[in-house]
Amino acid sequence: MNVLLEGEEHIRLKHEVWRFMQRHPDFQHEVETPSLDFQREMANKRVQIIWHQQFYSIEEYITKPKLALAMGQAIFSYEFSFPVKYSLSMAFFPSTILSLGSHHLVKYADKLSNGDIVGALALTEISHGTNIRGMRTRATYDARTKEFILHTPDFEAAKCWVGNLGKTCTHAVLYAQLYVPDDKYCGLHVFLVPIRDEQTLLAFPGVTVGDLGEKIGLNGIDNGFVMFNEYRIPKENLLSKTGDIDENGNYKSTIKDDRKRMGASLGGLSSGRVNICHLAYIALSKAITIATRYSACRKQFGPEDTTEEWPVIEYQTQQYRLLPYLATAYALRTFTMWLGTENVAMTTSTFTGEDVSKLGMEIHAVSSAAKPVCTWVARDGIQECREACGGHGYLKAVGLGDLRNDNDANCTYEGENNTLIQQASNWLISLRRNGANFAENSPLDTIAFLKDMNQILNHKAEERTVEEALQPDNLLKALNWLVAYQLDTTVKRFESLKREGVDAFETRNNLQVFNAQLLSIFYAERTIFYIFYKFVNQLEKSNEKSVLTNILSFYGANLVQKHFGIFYEGGYFHNRTNSKLYKEAILEMLPVLKNEAISLIDAIAPTDFVLNSPLGMSDGNVYQHLQRTIVTAPGVYERPNWWRQVTYKDYLQKSKI
Amino acid sequence: MNVLLEGEEHIRLKHEVWRFMQRHPDFQHEVETPSLDFQREMANKRVQIIWHQQFYSIEEYITKPKLALAMGQAIFSYEFSFPVKYSLSMAFFPSTILSLGSHHLVKYADKLSNGDIVGALALTEISHGTNIRGMRTRATYDARTKEFILHTPDFEAAKCWVGNLGKTCTHAVLYAQLYVPDDKYCGLHVFLVPIRDEQTLLAFPGVTVGDLGEKIGLNGIDNGFVMFNEYRIPKENLLSKTGDIDENGNYKSTIKDDRKRMGASLGGLSSGRVNICHLAYIALSKAITIATRYSACRKQFGPEDTTEEWPVIEYQTQQYRLLPYLATAYALRTFTMWLGTENVAMTTSTFTGEDVSKLGMEIHAVSSAAKPVCTWVARDGIQECREACGGHGYLKAVGLGDLRNDNDANCTYEGENNTLIQQASNWLISLRRNGANFAENSPLDTIAFLKDMNQILNHKAEERTVEEALQPDNLLKALNWLVAYQLDTTVKRFESLKREGVDAFETRNNLQVFNAQLLSIFYAERTIFYIFYKFVNQLEKSNEKSVLTNILSFYGANLVQKHFGIFYEGGYFHNRTNSKLYKEAILEMLPVLKNEAISLIDAIAPTDFVLNSPLGMSDGNVYQHLQRTIVTAPGVYERPNWWRQVTYKDYLQKSKI
Repeated sequence: MNVLLEGEEHIRLKHEVWRFMQRHPDFQHEVETPSLDFQREMANKRVQIIWHQQFYSIEEYITKPKLALAMGQAIFSYEFSFPVKYSLSMAFFPSTILSLGSHHLVKYADKLSNGDIVGALALTEISHGTNIRGMRTRATYDARTKEFILHTPDFEAAKCWVGNLGKTCTHAVLYAQLYVPDDKYCGLHVFLVPIRDEQTLLAFPGVTVGDLGEKIGLNGIDNGFVMFNEYRIPKENLLSKTGDIDENGNYKSTIKDDRKRMGASLGGLSSGRVNICHLAYIALSKAITIATRYSACRKQFGPEDTTEEWPVIEYQTQQYRLLPYLATAYALRTFTMWLGTENVAMTTSTFTGEDVSKLGMEIHAVSSAAKPVCTWVARDGIQECREACGGHGYLKAVGLGDLRNDNDANCTYEGENNTLIQQASNWLISLRRNGANFAENSPLDTIAFLKDMNQILNHKAEERTVEEALQPDNLLKALNWLVAYQLDTTVKRFESLKREGVDAFETRNNLQVFNAQLLSIFYAERTIFYIFYKFVNQLEKSNEKSVLTNILSFYGANLVQKHFGIFYEGGYFHNRTNSKLYKEAILEMLPVLKNEAISLIDAIAPTDFVLNSPLGMSDGNVYQHLQRTIVTAPGVYERPNWWRQVTYKDYLQKSKI
Repeated sequence: MNVLLEGEEHIRLKHEVWRFMQRHPDFQHEVETPSLDFQREMANKRVQIIWHQQFYSIEEYITKPKLALAMGQAIFSYEFSFPVKYSLSMAFFPSTILSLGSHHLVKYADKLSNGDIVGALALTEISHGTNIRGMRTRATYDARTKEFILHTPDFEAAKCWVGNLGKTCTHAVLYAQLYVPDDKYCGLHVFLVPIRDEQTLLAFPGVTVGDLGEKIGLNGIDNGFVMFNEYRIPKENLLSKTGDIDENGNYKSTIKDDRKRMGASLGGLSSGRVNICHLAYIALSKAITIATRYSACRKQFGPEDTTEEWPVIEYQTQQYRLLPYLATAYALRTFTMWLGTENVAMTTSTFTGEDVSKLGMEIHAVSSAAKPVCTWVARDGIQECREACGGHGYLKAVGLGDLRNDNDANCTYEGENNTLIQQASNWLISLRRNGANFAENSPLDTIAFLKDMNQILNHKAEERTVEEALQPDNLLKALNWLVAYQLDTTVKRFESLKREGVDAFETRNNLQVFNAQLLSIFYAERTIFYIFYKFVNQLEKSNEKSVLTNILSFYGANLVQKHFGIFYEGGYFHNRTNSKLYKEAILEMLPVLKNEAISLIDAIAPTDFVLNSPLGMSDGNVYQHLQRTIVTAPGVYERPNWWRQVTYKDYLQKSKI
């Protein structure tokens, strides 16, 4: 099953990385949460260790771009902090320099590969994150000295949340508003800025750089803030591919449109969203592994006439808590691998100069809708797994708290979910309003079906049996209708607001709840289902295929079930048994999938060392692992050194005298 | 508004406690998460400080039982760890002894009030939590020495998750299986067990007691585990009110039925659920305070033709993220105060010997359904608030992570939500199947409406305008129908499973998903709405009343909206505009409630010191508070002492030589 899902090379590299970690002292797990400082130290160490190890050569990277996905999966399965640091410095930083910088800045990418410098990417400000046009860090060109003067007017304009900036980076790629002589404003541009000395790691004068402090999760990452006080950097540190100045400060841009230039300078960020979908999959799959394995071992209650107890996974309630997320994990695995692969392919095409504008737009839309949907379903799934593990799931050592806390950030960074998701609905609405050809705008085939939108709107549910309700074709038909209906009603509302004279800004705002936002969600859900559907369909007949078909059906039926209200409101459901049929279908699938649950988990679980949860070990010896975890914690049996405060009731009062 | 909701005495006591905390050194807040050990030390200190302070006298406690609710609200608003420790030792432990113990054990309650001992309540075992009948800790009576021999067969039978047991308790109230001579089994009984020396705090020989280690939250509480090795305690340490033995070990019980005796011995636990509903309210109200205040200050984007930006609360999306939870907070405030008051009244009645069996059953059912519903809505609301605060909401210092982590435990302890909630549906199903009189079984009036169940089932939505959809009477009618319909379909499914020959155990199990579980949820939601509805209705006409009526309508409309699918499936909704009307109603209420949001928040928010969040201060100076928080963290500007590992790329490798 695993080979079917990922391919042998992927699996081989992943396990090689995991075996390396398991043997290495600096990848051994801590028992108790270490201090913030120690977490940062370890994350920094791990970045360097993995970097030095060079798991595959540059040649392999170029010939087999999918290996990057395997490598990502390997390190993010261990934990999230050090791999985020790794990607920020080793991928985001150099790729921004290479895509936006001019020739003479390439040396910094080289310094980075030599491990001489550490990079960061500084965009967000204290009072501006989403609205990048509102940013206020300034770069003013001084023609006399041929330098830019960076300045932060106040704390609200401090760059913040910058990964690696808090303690470790030497250089930052910085977004600032460019002003040339005579106070002429030239828009947001990107600069390469030395932050700390490459040897001493001390900040340069004029740079006030600090750490943002403890976070809910991801504490290995030293997120920082920085303020500049008339800090000077050389003219050549402007990343000048989209706009440059001459020595006297005359500005010229290759891209005239201000918005488009900004789009180009931020283009490098969209890969982040593609990757976050994959991180959400990883977090969800670890959580569902822990909860499913534990539920198969943990026994509680049983039939009245026996003393034997049942594993809790035998109960309908527990099945319905876990199996939808197990099915989702499978769907996300297929979808995120597909999206990652398509994104790598697009990046490769860019190098060869192909026109990828339509493809780029579709990937932008898919990832803008899917990043929220994937991270939200991971959020909900991890939480359900936490609760499904009962009290023991609340132990820090079980790992579900960390998964929740780390995935939580995925809902916010690289585009806050509720804001980011509007990108997809905006695209769909504008295609529909402009009468565009959906098939032509869909090289990835995620919206081609909408070319028949007007017919689809007339479709109705025709299933009469549970078997028919579970047919993948019928499920796809239902989800197609759902997207079409939501697009239709959203566009109609859009037009009606416009007719009422509401301006464009407010129309967009007042279109979100119950309309545009759901449209993006349905689009993402339908796409995830569709990619999984195509993957399963192309498999040759086998046991694996029939199990995967069951998962696909179950996943689809649960998606339909979430939106019964709309299926009725829009008339796709037309009698009172439509919804009952789907519920019956889900109930009938529960015991079927339950029987496959452990083998399905084994096919997606990382190794025990990487999973690192006493409730989720593959041998099923839950209580032995739990005992080992609990009784080996430092000081477990010790009297606290403040014991007098407990037993001498006036000790606290008296000690004050 | 605040006085309307709580009354003056309540508010006065609460603020007195908060002022005390604000002045006291040991209630000052930490900047960074302290070590586990220090968190326990502080929680222990705070318990003692509050205890010594004696905010009100025993006389006041007896004459004004509601003050206990105010006191609870005051301390739990500060944080959850020390008040849980406080309640376990000062309330649960003595109340169990007093309600189940015989006369000679009262001295322990006295010792406790003197602060000589610290109590704990030991029920859960490593492999048995929910199914208490499966517990395996044994108490064997030795007639020769007139002692019980406590023994734990293996680690799976270790008592665990016991609050105060990890580091601080001297005594535990312990649930163990009683065996008398000739190996005769007498069921689960409760024993008072000395764990540690009252002076040295060292564990007694035969008692292996340890700490359960770090948890996801509530780390001030020292949850522990204990194993006994042929550990002897005197005969009189049996809490003998429901069952006793003579000197020779002959057992006699005042309650013959094994289940009923167990029910009696666990009866004291149900108050916990009532209180947890209130804790969920407190956590949710703090979270919504932070997110709403921040959303009113934080500006982002604005109309195209201006440079002015809008506060994010002006956006429909943000309103729809926050306002439903603000309304829920108000509903929960009223509901949990009502439930707490009724529960205190019942306890008082018990002392006077009144028959409270029907009242007790109804409180048991309401709290079993409401505890899950309240803690789940708090869980979802806190998470939405975390995300609605964007990146800054991810800072530990903002407090949303701790609220989430602490409330998380509420979903599990005192009855795991998914299991506990079955108590309410079991009750409703059995009343319906037995043709019981719903009015007679409802001294609290939560199910009296079901006496007209058969008529209610024929009701249909008749609203034609948004105003009608928002009418509280119409909303109540819809929610009444929802409960009736769900009860009817669940009972019908029950009967059909029985007819198919499924046994009682499996019938109950296979009735949960889409049926019994939703029944309990609808029952809780309808009850919360109904209590809020009655509260608002009895108010005299005023501005406050009209604002509260809006909140009530908005809250109800959102409840209806959650269940559109079932309203259609059951035929209450009968045309495609029914659901659209409710959505329109919600959208129209958003800007109305938005205008009241800040004053509504101010009426329920704790003081700034207690709230302790830079994003949620009442003065609205978000960025000043944020700056203070960030730049005053220890070491914020410091170079880490492991800096050589960052800049000397081979430092790690070389240092190994």
